[in-house]
Amino acid sequence: MIQKILIANRGEIAVRVIRAAKELGIETVAIYSEADKDSLHVQLADEAYCVGPTLSKESYLNKTNIMSLAKLTDSDAIHPGYGFLSENADFAEMCEACNVTFIGPSADAISRMGTKDVARETMDQAGVPIVPGSDGIIDGVEDGKKIADEIGYPVIIKATAGGGGKGIRVARNEEELEKGIRITQNEAETAFGNPGVYLEKFIEDFRHVEIQIIADTHGNTVHLGERDCTIQRRLQKLIEETPSPAINDETRQRMGKAAVKAAQAVNYVGAGTIEFIYDRQQDEFYFMEMNTRIQVEHPVTEMVTGIDLIKEQINVANGHELSFKQDEVTFEGWAIECRINAENPFRQFMPSAGKIDMYLPPGGLGVRVDSAAYTGWNIPPYYDSMIAKLITYGNTRDEAVQRMNRALDEFVIEGIYSTVPFHKRMMNHPVFVGGEFNTKFLEEYDVLSDETAKEVK
Amino acid sequence: MIQKILIANRGEIAVRVIRAAKELGIETVAIYSEADKDSLHVQLADEAYCVGPTLSKESYLNKTNIMSLAKLTDSDAIHPGYGFLSENADFAEMCEACNVTFIGPSADAISRMGTKDVARETMDQAGVPIVPGSDGIIDGVEDGKKIADEIGYPVIIKATAGGGGKGIRVARNEEELEKGIRITQNEAETAFGNPGVYLEKFIEDFRHVEIQIIADTHGNTVHLGERDCTIQRRLQKLIEETPSPAINDETRQRMGKAAVKAAQAVNYVGAGTIEFIYDRQQDEFYFMEMNTRIQVEHPVTEMVTGIDLIKEQINVANGHELSFKQDEVTFEGWAIECRINAENPFRQFMPSAGKIDMYLPPGGLGVRVDSAAYTGWNIPPYYDSMIAKLITYGNTRDEAVQRMNRALDEFVIEGIYSTVPFHKRMMNHPVFVGGEFNTKFLEEYDVLSDETAKEVK
Repeated sequence: MIQKILIANRGEIAVRVIRAAKELGIETVAIYSEADKDSLHVQLADEAYCVGPTLSKESYLNKTNIMSLAKLTDSDAIHPGYGFLSENADFAEMCEACNVTFIGPSADAISRMGTKDVARETMDQAGVPIVPGSDGIIDGVEDGKKIADEIGYPVIIKATAGGGGKGIRVARNEEELEKGIRITQNEAETAFGNPGVYLEKFIEDFRHVEIQIIADTHGNTVHLGERDCTIQRRLQKLIEETPSPAINDETRQRMGKAAVKAAQAVNYVGAGTIEFIYDRQQDEFYFMEMNTRIQVEHPVTEMVTGIDLIKEQINVANGHELSFKQDEVTFEGWAIECRINAENPFRQFMPSAGKIDMYLPPGGLGVRVDSAAYTGWNIPPYYDSMIAKLITYGNTRDEAVQRMNRALDEFVIEGIYSTVPFHKRMMNHPVFVGGEFNTKFLEEYDVLSDETAKEVK
Repeated sequence: MIQKILIANRGEIAVRVIRAAKELGIETVAIYSEADKDSLHVQLADEAYCVGPTLSKESYLNKTNIMSLAKLTDSDAIHPGYGFLSENADFAEMCEACNVTFIGPSADAISRMGTKDVARETMDQAGVPIVPGSDGIIDGVEDGKKIADEIGYPVIIKATAGGGGKGIRVARNEEELEKGIRITQNEAETAFGNPGVYLEKFIEDFRHVEIQIIADTHGNTVHLGERDCTIQRRLQKLIEETPSPAINDETRQRMGKAAVKAAQAVNYVGAGTIEFIYDRQQDEFYFMEMNTRIQVEHPVTEMVTGIDLIKEQINVANGHELSFKQDEVTFEGWAIECRINAENPFRQFMPSAGKIDMYLPPGGLGVRVDSAAYTGWNIPPYYDSMIAKLITYGNTRDEAVQRMNRALDEFVIEGIYSTVPFHKRMMNHPVFVGGEFNTKFLEEYDVLSDETAKEVK
C-alpha cells in the first residue's frame, strides 16, 4: 500500500493530488523550482524540497533529482500530474527500475500512444476509427505532397511526438504544406527531440469530444463518459463540459466502447483519455490521440459521476480492482469548466504574470475551484499561464451556464489580467449558450471586440 | 413573476440569496447597516442601500425603512434569510399589505409556529408526537413546580417566543426551576416582548434530528430528508450532517411523514424545518419546534438531494408548483457542515471581531464554502459571529469527514481567531468519527484541552 507520494508537478494539479492523498491518509512530498518557493502546493504538502532552478528542464523535468528525492524521502510512489514528466516513458521506466510506483500507465503504453503515428496504427488495427492519412511518418516534403494529393486538402501536419495542441499545423494547399512540414519538423526536433511528422485529412467542421477511461491491473477497463472540449483557441482548450451538447446517447455508447477498445489495445492501466474528432455532419468520430495521464479537464467528469479520479488512480496503482463496474457508473447533471489563465484576453491573450493583489474565488452551491492562487502570490512568468479552474455544476446545461455566469461575476483577481472577462462573454454568447458550434467558434465569432470591452486590470 | 428581490439580511445568507437570484436572472437589492458598508453582500448585489445605523433594531430589524426601500426600488419580493425579520409575523403581514411578496410562509403559520406552546398544541392535535409537558403557558412558579413534579425532573423551561437556542433553560430540581422560570421570563420579556414560558420533560440522552420540508400553494408538501445537528454548544449548533448516522430508514420515513403532517397542520407554504428530539434509547422522536424559514444548515440537504432550496423558495413564492414530487427526491452520498465562527475556541469561544489579514477558503472536489468573508474585511463585532460555512460532500460519511479534515487544514483565516482548530479536533475525535454520540458531546469530551493546543491567531 502506498504510504507516501511525491508529486512531480506544480500549481493546481499538485494541489489536487495533495488533496486526494490527504483524504486517503497518505503523506505527500512536494517539489519546487527556485521560482516556486512561495507556491501553494509547497505550503500544503507534508514535505517540500527544491529540485532545481527556475528552468523546467533543470527542475520539474529533472528526472535524476526527482528520483533521488523520492528515494531520500522514502516516497513509495510518484504522481506526475499532467505536462512535465507525465507522458515521459523513460521516467516511467526509471520509476520501475528504482522500485517506486509510477501513478500512471506502463512505459510501453506511454510510448505507443505518445508516438502518434504508432498510436494511429495501433488504433486502426484495434478497430477504432481513424482519420484518413499517411501510413506512419512521412518521408519528407515530396512524400507528404503525394499523400496530401491522395487524401485531399486541407490536411493536418502532426509531430508524432507532439500532443496537447503542440507540434500541429494545418495546410490548405501545397505551398502551406511544404512550409508547414519543415516548420513542424524543426519545432518537433527542438521541443521533443523527434522530428517525425505524419499527415491526416483535416476535418474542418468538427467538435472535440473525448472519453475518460480508467483501467486496473485485473483486466477491468471502464469509461466514464465524454467531455466536450470544442471551445479552443489555437488548439488550446479553454472551456470543457460534460455531457456534450452535440452527441446523442447512441453515439455516446459507441464512443465509450471504442475508447475502452483503444485502451485495451495497449494494455492500459490507470486514468487516460481518448480524444476524438466528432464530425457533426456525418455523426461519425475518429481517433485523434490518447493522453496517457490525468487531464486538466478531469473535474467535469468527477462532478457528474461522483468519482474522485485521483483517488481512483491511487487505488489502481495500489494494485486494487476499480471501485466500480461499468454498469455502476451513473451520470447526473451537467458540469462546465472554464480555464482561468493569467492572460489579457483583450491583447491576444498575452501572458500577464506578476503579483495578485487580491484573490477571492467564488463559492456556494455547485461551484468548485481548483487553484493554487492566493492574495499576494507572485505568478512566475516561466510556466503555464493557467492559474485556476472554475467548475460549475447544475441539473441542466442552462443551470450550469448561469451558475458559471454568476461565479465569474464573483471571481476577484486583482493586479494581473485574467481570462475571466473572456469567459463572461462566452457564457452570454447566444451561440455558446445554444450549444451548436464547432472548434472554429473563436475564429467565427469575435466575442471580445465589443465597444464596451473594458480593460480592467 | 418576481423580477427583483430585496434581501433583508446580511453576511453569508444575503450572499447565498444573491447567488440564487442571479442564476435565475432576477435583480437583487442589498440592505446594510452603517457598520456593514464594506460587506461582500453589498458588493455582489445589483443595488445596495444603507437602511440605518449599526444597531440591528435600527437597521436590519427596521421594518418601515426596509419596506420603504422595497417600494422605492420597485422590488416585488423580499427574502428575509434567517434571523432578523425572517420569523416576524408582523413583517410578513406588512409585506402582504404593501403588495410585496414575502419569500416565506404566511403570517399565520409564522405566529402559530413561533408561539411555542401553540405550536406544541397544534402538533399534538395533528398527531405529531410531542414531549410530555405543560398544557401551554404556565401560570407562574407554583404552577410550574406542580407540573414538574408530575412529569418528573429534569425539565426544560422554554420561552414561547424563543427559538434557535435562545430563551431555553434546564432545571434539575425545584430550586433550579424557581430561578430558571424567573430568569427565562425576564429574558423573554426583554428579548421577544413576551414573557410566556412553558415546561417540557427534559430528555437527556438525545440527538437533534430535523426534517427539511418545502410546500407550494398547490397543496404539495414534500420532505427532503433529515439533518443531524447533535453537535451543539450551549444549544447553538456547530456541526450538521445528513443523513443522520443515528437513525435507520424506517425511522427516517416515519419522521419525514410526521414533518409533512406538521407542515400541513398550519397550511405551510415555502421552506421550513421541523426539529425533533430523537431518543436513541427508545428509537422515538418528539416535536421540538418548527423553524419557519431557511436554516443555516440548509446546504447539507442541497448537497445530497441536488435541490437548490433558495431557488425552490423563489419558485414557490412565484406561485408555481414544486419542481419535484416526493418520490422524485433522491438522496446520494453524505454531507457535513462546519460553522466557522470568529471566536477563540481556546477561550470559551470568545468572539473575535477585527480585520482578516488573510483569507483563503479551501477548494477542490466535494468542498463548498458559503461565506461573505474576504482578505481585508473588518468583521464588525455587532452581529452573529459566524463568518463561513464549510460544507464537504463524500460518497460515504468517512469520505465527507476526511474531506472536511483536509479542507480545514487548507482554510486560511489570519488576523482573528476562528473555530477552525475546534472543528479540526472534532474531525479527528474517535467518538465523533464513530458517529455514536448525543447532544452532550461537548460536555462529556473536552476536545480542546489538549496539551498541544496552540493558540494560533
